[in-house]
Amino acid sequence: MKKIASSLIAAVLVMGSSAVLADEGMWQPNQLPTIAKQLTKAGLKLNPNDLTDLTGFPMGAIVSLGGCTASFVSDKGLVATNHHCVYGSVQYNSTAENNLLKNGFLAKSFKEELPATPGQRLYVTEEINEVTKLVKAGLTNAMSGSDRYKAIDINSKTLVAECENDDRYRCSVVNFHGGLEYYLFKQLTIRDVRLVHAPASSIGKYGGDIDNWMWPRHTGDYGFYRAYVGKDGQPADFHEDNVPYQPKHHLKVNKSSVDDGDYIMVLGYPGRTNRYRTAYEVENQFTWVYPQAKAYREEVIDLIHTNSEVGSEARIKYESTLAGLANYAKNYGSMIHSYNKGSFFSRKQALETNLAQWLNSDSKRKAKYGTALTGLNKLLKMDDAQQARDLILGYLRYSKMLTTANQLHRLAVEKQLPNIERESGYQERDIARFEQRMKAVNRRYDAKIDQEIVVAMLTHYVALPKAERVSSIDNFFALSHSTAANFNEKKLREQLTKMYKNTKLNVQEQRLAWMNKDVSDFENSNDPFIQLAVASFKQRKAIEDKSNELSGNIQAYRPKYMEALIAYFNDNNLPVYADANSTLRITYGNVKGYSPQDGLTATPYTTLEGIVAKDTGVAPFDAPKKQLELINNKRYGQYAKKSLGSVPVNFLGTLDITGGNSGSPTLNDKAEFVGLVFDGVYESIIGDWDYDTKLNRSIHVDIRYMLWVMEHVDGATNLIEEMDIVE
Amino acid sequence: MKKIASSLIAAVLVMGSSAVLADEGMWQPNQLPTIAKQLTKAGLKLNPNDLTDLTGFPMGAIVSLGGCTASFVSDKGLVATNHHCVYGSVQYNSTAENNLLKNGFLAKSFKEELPATPGQRLYVTEEINEVTKLVKAGLTNAMSGSDRYKAIDINSKTLVAECENDDRYRCSVVNFHGGLEYYLFKQLTIRDVRLVHAPASSIGKYGGDIDNWMWPRHTGDYGFYRAYVGKDGQPADFHEDNVPYQPKHHLKVNKSSVDDGDYIMVLGYPGRTNRYRTAYEVENQFTWVYPQAKAYREEVIDLIHTNSEVGSEARIKYESTLAGLANYAKNYGSMIHSYNKGSFFSRKQALETNLAQWLNSDSKRKAKYGTALTGLNKLLKMDDAQQARDLILGYLRYSKMLTTANQLHRLAVEKQLPNIERESGYQERDIARFEQRMKAVNRRYDAKIDQEIVVAMLTHYVALPKAERVSSIDNFFALSHSTAANFNEKKLREQLTKMYKNTKLNVQEQRLAWMNKDVSDFENSNDPFIQLAVASFKQRKAIEDKSNELSGNIQAYRPKYMEALIAYFNDNNLPVYADANSTLRITYGNVKGYSPQDGLTATPYTTLEGIVAKDTGVAPFDAPKKQLELINNKRYGQYAKKSLGSVPVNFLGTLDITGGNSGSPTLNDKAEFVGLVFDGVYESIIGDWDYDTKLNRSIHVDIRYMLWVMEHVDGATNLIEEMDIVE
Repeated sequence: MKKIASSLIAAVLVMGSSAVLADEGMWQPNQLPTIAKQLTKAGLKLNPNDLTDLTGFPMGAIVSLGGCTASFVSDKGLVATNHHCVYGSVQYNSTAENNLLKNGFLAKSFKEELPATPGQRLYVTEEINEVTKLVKAGLTNAMSGSDRYKAIDINSKTLVAECENDDRYRCSVVNFHGGLEYYLFKQLTIRDVRLVHAPASSIGKYGGDIDNWMWPRHTGDYGFYRAYVGKDGQPADFHEDNVPYQPKHHLKVNKSSVDDGDYIMVLGYPGRTNRYRTAYEVENQFTWVYPQAKAYREEVIDLIHTNSEVGSEARIKYESTLAGLANYAKNYGSMIHSYNKGSFFSRKQALETNLAQWLNSDSKRKAKYGTALTGLNKLLKMDDAQQARDLILGYLRYSKMLTTANQLHRLAVEKQLPNIERESGYQERDIARFEQRMKAVNRRYDAKIDQEIVVAMLTHYVALPKAERVSSIDNFFALSHSTAANFNEKKLREQLTKMYKNTKLNVQEQRLAWMNKDVSDFENSNDPFIQLAVASFKQRKAIEDKSNELSGNIQAYRPKYMEALIAYFNDNNLPVYADANSTLRITYGNVKGYSPQDGLTATPYTTLEGIVAKDTGVAPFDAPKKQLELINNKRYGQYAKKSLGSVPVNFLGTLDITGGNSGSPTLNDKAEFVGLVFDGVYESIIGDWDYDTKLNRSIHVDIRYMLWVMEHVDGATNLIEEMDIVE
Repeated sequence: MKKIASSLIAAVLVMGSSAVLADEGMWQPNQLPTIAKQLTKAGLKLNPNDLTDLTGFPMGAIVSLGGCTASFVSDKGLVATNHHCVYGSVQYNSTAENNLLKNGFLAKSFKEELPATPGQRLYVTEEINEVTKLVKAGLTNAMSGSDRYKAIDINSKTLVAECENDDRYRCSVVNFHGGLEYYLFKQLTIRDVRLVHAPASSIGKYGGDIDNWMWPRHTGDYGFYRAYVGKDGQPADFHEDNVPYQPKHHLKVNKSSVDDGDYIMVLGYPGRTNRYRTAYEVENQFTWVYPQAKAYREEVIDLIHTNSEVGSEARIKYESTLAGLANYAKNYGSMIHSYNKGSFFSRKQALETNLAQWLNSDSKRKAKYGTALTGLNKLLKMDDAQQARDLILGYLRYSKMLTTANQLHRLAVEKQLPNIERESGYQERDIARFEQRMKAVNRRYDAKIDQEIVVAMLTHYVALPKAERVSSIDNFFALSHSTAANFNEKKLREQLTKMYKNTKLNVQEQRLAWMNKDVSDFENSNDPFIQLAVASFKQRKAIEDKSNELSGNIQAYRPKYMEALIAYFNDNNLPVYADANSTLRITYGNVKGYSPQDGLTATPYTTLEGIVAKDTGVAPFDAPKKQLELINNKRYGQYAKKSLGSVPVNFLGTLDITGGNSGSPTLNDKAEFVGLVFDGVYESIIGDWDYDTKLNRSIHVDIRYMLWVMEHVDGATNLIEEMDIVE
């Protein structure tokens, strides 16, 4: 049992804690003692200190699925998470004859459990250690940005490699507060994960993309995995002799759920937030990056629609790409709207004005931090000078052929280096996943659509000023003299049509073969996409190096700025918690509605009747007939909530979450499982940058709905019996 | 001073009143004493009997604008109504240089007041007399449907003609309860109506079509007219020597407005409801008529969009047509949704089952009413047999050329008859309005779009079974052998192109000249649309005659069915009030929110801040900058509501209203003016058929918002001073 090392932040918080805003904050476990009073006041019945023990209760029951969170809910390794977190595994096991996505899946015994999608892992965080000094070893003020970037990179990789000497573990070095601190995370990695249960998509994805990020919500977004290990209790690859993992701790399930106003908390792995960015970064992101990226996304969505009929093979291949594009187009749209309507930018400006005054009021502070913000912003502006080009090159990556060629060639280049010096993603530890990616290309590839993406993005590219262009790309496509005004799209299309005709990268065996070739093979290849990759590599690498040089320089300024900001916050009794970075966090608050608009109140619960009201019989509003009948006949079983007169389906909380929290258990004041968090409301999307107490609401599946569906619709009584259900 | 005659219904209600559902009911003034207890219990501070006096307070202050309601709010004939009710007059007085629609209009003195749109009248109901016996004089059970139809028609027209001998009055005979009773309405007609004030459309129409029928709402839907009369105090045509009318009564304005839960009532002229239709009628309407009509509306909307660019002259001409088409496409959509989701049809069926049991349980009742419903339904089914054809012919009327030709020819035909026998719309009393319509044709006409409408509807027409086709139309367009499968659209287009090229009906002088020609002139015309009108007239008239024959037969059954239903309701203590029929009614209830969806509550008030939140700077969300600044600076003046912390903009009530109620004053418990009703919420659109206590909500402009805008945005202090403002 290890606790993570104390840190500057934790110390700071002891003083600043009285001003911590309710509900805001994604707290590191080690910070909890510093906000013990607030936790107890909010309603927590456990000793806050207990939450700092990663391998104790309840933290030991919380696991990561890589991108999603999950939790152990039985002593036989049963794992609860979101439906959208097990979706890939359901899809992987579906066939035309046995469509598990449509029908749902239930293993009535261990034997019937199915392997999860290849590569699915389950990570149990066992140790968190601060490694700031080790990561920053050898850094000097005088060194170049590139050298600083490289030093941090190599130091981190070395720590990871040492940690992963024990091959049961996956390790990572993560920076906090923009590089002010670094922590090494050590996670036990369970490699045999099996699908136990998922409701039909018409329950688990009810409302689909239309209801995504929306309230009122009626989604049964839950599913179950089980962790398996070798007979020796140690992580092992899938084998039929493997046995269910016995976690040291699992969560009890409280079927009484929670009420309006009750204390709730979520333990999980939130992905990324940007709460401490500078006003310059904020303005650039919301007035340039998001609007432009939203436009590109919508353009790519349109061209996929135009070039594939609904229900066609091509469309089916791109459904998941489309969902991702639309998801973030909607996300950016909400953020732009919130930014334009709200006071985020002016508050950010005010903060910087106040910070400057505070710094200037003390000569020591001024000397130490006086240039941090201006220095940082100067570097950020340099980084953004080519952002128009970089965004286009970024969206060009939606072309599978371009990306595949670039990655295969890069692998050959990186392999020339010692493993520790290779770029992340090309080290030995990454090869298995790289291969999986290469195998999966054709599942999401259509030549016509791929070509249209290249045409669309190169059309934007030729409109760039000459100085921002990449001459090797210009030469390859004969675009050196092309501008927006004289762009010969027809000629480009002719060249691309030939390229798509002649490339072999659309063949899996070819791609896998290329994984083992060396740089000279690439240089001698007559595959047109490989030729493009080779021809443009030097310049693309130069762009990357320049970017790393800038990153290295930023790494000299951002920590200083964060140190100043934390000192200022501390002095002003303002809360400080690190931005989300896919590491284990705790957020707490209450069940609570909100006002999404003047004249409207979102009440904190939805009920079964809302499913019937939304249902059209057409996806995504096509609940199973059996479910609709049960609701119409008010067959609530033991799960009705008196105050609602029905079974609660989803509820709203004030918790501070983001992507990565998906699947996190929602716990009551005794850390009992009362639901799963799976989304936030539309008005809180900007929360990744700016938490608003009035509008920030998390959306949770109520345990009562889970149990009601499991018992009455799906007959998953074996799982209900396996869990420890209390009330 | 006259009170209306007592009626069967009023007598019935004395017994049935205890079961009257709160808020439901559009009560005739004479019914109010029968629900006096409920009114007083609900909070009315006046003696309910006082509301029966049409020329006393407050009824004497309520007027009709023909399609809208209004009320006198000063002793100098100042009239308050909705912005959308004065919209035509604002548009009429707008020029490119002086765009009153955009900028709003305020007369700072009587002199600056502008004439309303030509034909605008203001009707003050002075007498309501039951005339059932006179209308039904001479009816026998033996007579044919046509004869019954004709007898009722002529009796009614005779009563109207007698009543209108005093040319200060406009009279009408209106049927109640499907012809069970008839009333003669006598209305003083003020012919000189002037525009006094209207806010900018960006206030008065804020939210436009997007917010139409929606909550939350932020529309300043108010405007002011003034009634003028001759120096002798009698109605007179517009003349600069005319003087403001001095109404006997006007409403006091209570600037304290009302609070959540307060008593409110609306006095006005609701247009049409269908609360007593048979289950057969309901099913046919919701499963066939509305879905089909919605599809045709959407098709016409699409073709107008396709054939006119945004901002083009053609598009501008069709904006109002588009708004009307979209308005009811949305309306039908809501009703179909409510019907499919709710229990309306099964409740209607249950009612008929219960009614039948009740009738059969008593031999006398059985003998008297036993066949009423089956007989009625049989006739209704006959009427509906050709509904597919009739709906197509109905939408074909969107072609201005077809309709103009038909109407001009019909006028010549009708002129051959004595005035009293002519079809409604073609009598001498109708000629002025007929001429106005002919003058207005080109304002909403574009040949290309008109032709596309004909093509679209004839495409549906050729898919009809042969038996439903109209041979003269088939012959005219050479469609006799056309079916959906072999339809030669190209040939039809060629013929239509010629017709549109050769017709002169697109010229105003030509149309007006045709108003004075006789039937033989039409028969000898070489205008292609007149040729079509003449060629198809006999068959169209035969269809009309057959429909009248059926109507006459229905008029023998519907009153009997309604009599049975009323007796049954009475016996079961259920409320009975007549369907809306554009006559004066009172509805009362409370300020109250509702739940539009599971998980959402509509709160009863919106506030100024909601305007800023919705504002995009682009119509229809483009509030005046001055207004936005005032709100951002919290310049609420004396109009903030403490409980809201801001100025209320719109509020929700439980009142039972429909189209025609627009502009009706919303009154408090002392009959003081506290706002204007202007819309209902989306979920209550089906209320025209089926009132739902949970979902039926009226939307009102709050007097505080009106006064705040008038004082702070528009500086209309002269009007504020003119009104009697109390608190």
